[in-house]
Amino acid sequence: MLIQRLAIIGVGLIGGSLARALRQKRQCRSVVGFGRNPVHLDKAVELGVIDEYSLTVASAVRDADMVVLATPLDTTSRLLQAMRNYLGRDTVITDVGSAKGSVVEAARNTLGDCLPRFIPGHPIAGKEQSGVEASVADLFDSHRVILTPLPENSVQALERVTKMWEITGADVVQLDVEQHDEILAATSHLPHMLAYALVDCLAGMKDSDEIFRFAAGGFADFTRIASSDPQMWHDICIANRQYLLSALNHFDQHLNNIRQAIENDDSKSLLKIFTRAKKARDQFTRSSNRHNDAPE
Amino acid sequence: MLIQRLAIIGVGLIGGSLARALRQKRQCRSVVGFGRNPVHLDKAVELGVIDEYSLTVASAVRDADMVVLATPLDTTSRLLQAMRNYLGRDTVITDVGSAKGSVVEAARNTLGDCLPRFIPGHPIAGKEQSGVEASVADLFDSHRVILTPLPENSVQALERVTKMWEITGADVVQLDVEQHDEILAATSHLPHMLAYALVDCLAGMKDSDEIFRFAAGGFADFTRIASSDPQMWHDICIANRQYLLSALNHFDQHLNNIRQAIENDDSKSLLKIFTRAKKARDQFTRSSNRHNDAPE
Repeated sequence: MLIQRLAIIGVGLIGGSLARALRQKRQCRSVVGFGRNPVHLDKAVELGVIDEYSLTVASAVRDADMVVLATPLDTTSRLLQAMRNYLGRDTVITDVGSAKGSVVEAARNTLGDCLPRFIPGHPIAGKEQSGVEASVADLFDSHRVILTPLPENSVQALERVTKMWEITGADVVQLDVEQHDEILAATSHLPHMLAYALVDCLAGMKDSDEIFRFAAGGFADFTRIASSDPQMWHDICIANRQYLLSALNHFDQHLNNIRQAIENDDSKSLLKIFTRAKKARDQFTRSSNRHNDAPE
Repeated sequence: MLIQRLAIIGVGLIGGSLARALRQKRQCRSVVGFGRNPVHLDKAVELGVIDEYSLTVASAVRDADMVVLATPLDTTSRLLQAMRNYLGRDTVITDVGSAKGSVVEAARNTLGDCLPRFIPGHPIAGKEQSGVEASVADLFDSHRVILTPLPENSVQALERVTKMWEITGADVVQLDVEQHDEILAATSHLPHMLAYALVDCLAGMKDSDEIFRFAAGGFADFTRIASSDPQMWHDICIANRQYLLSALNHFDQHLNNIRQAIENDDSKSLLKIFTRAKKARDQFTRSSNRHNDAPE
């Protein structure tokens, strides 16, 4: 059994799904949850996701050999600080934050000699629904988990976190912190901003009810991510500000190319852009089908 | 039987699906197709979508009592011109173009005394795949079809086109030409531009293969429409230029609000925008579930 006592700090969609997966694979003897809201935590116990819970971080991590931080990014620094003095000598700590630079900075500022056992991580999986009720054991199956190990990290701690994610069926890969944040700004954070901006734009138009009535399946797909948790996405934007703003500027240039081609009746450029984009998107579909047999 | 001889001008996804639906409901005695490519048309005959085909518009429409124009917008004017002198006295003509202003202009310039029998239409249904191979009989089932009748239209012609679409299971509604083009610019044409721009932006980044590798399900949903037919979308952009540019400007303002909030670390505004957008998107999900029981 890989883990004796797993502490899930933040028992929501991601934390809950990880606990479910490890329990299902019988790789985890007991699970303790930490959260602020006893109603949610009681629900998590009732659902069999955790065995028990604590309302203080200190007692949640005290006897754990694996601690997973799965709360909004904004809370990272405070929670690492709060657990720091209660971590066991061999306890491994990891997180699931969607931006890694700010997490690593917080870890460096708070963890002291526990830093070698803190492995920054990010599972590329999710749903629009949040909360432990939405958690499922196969959330990470055939999905990528990115770890961004630090030069100070112990090989043993890295190995334990890698194994933990592999047990869930995930494909674990490693990136630099900066690489991760630049790539995720482009593939995830930017699309969320565009979806939020589009829905906000349409909702602000006169007769917006009428407008939404005529939206088709393409619109539904395109804007599904605008139903994601506002607080979580607020935290991600602030945490990954630099790379996100740069991705936004980059996007603006490409949108402007399209706009100018339309303004100038420049059929040749317009067709060239659309054809190039379709080719890239079709290529993406083919390679993601190779990687993951599950429906997108 | 509603239709004796149906002429499908452009036997692709939309034209083919309409023919399939009408045949399945036994509301159409025979179907003749027109197209440029005999290989595609042979395929359409083989698939049972059409009975026969012609490589000239004139002979395709000659004995038809219903003519459906389902080719890219760019060809509308030329094809209406080419069929004009071969239309029967009672033949009803309709189209499926995604922008209506340019179609109506072309019809007014070419159709002369056939104009009362030309009913502009637009089924809000589609797939990324194009071509007759992708056509299915239930493509329009529980989807909206918008008709934008002209003051000159005959009541009888409008009734026939309405009935034709109702037979496919569609919910037929009427809008003004300008209303249609403004609404579709916002809900369909703009999202396609954003998806094309995003994919083009990512494909142009260094290590773009690496970048696409880490894209998750949200990205796949968001960019699915960038796999749509470039020629078709080129034509839509040019045809609906005015409303599309205005929707792009409107979107820009909303994206800028988000950008500025991120730049200024303005948590309050950021949370407010995301929360407002999520509320509108959740509301859209609820109302589209009410309208259409099929998955989005």
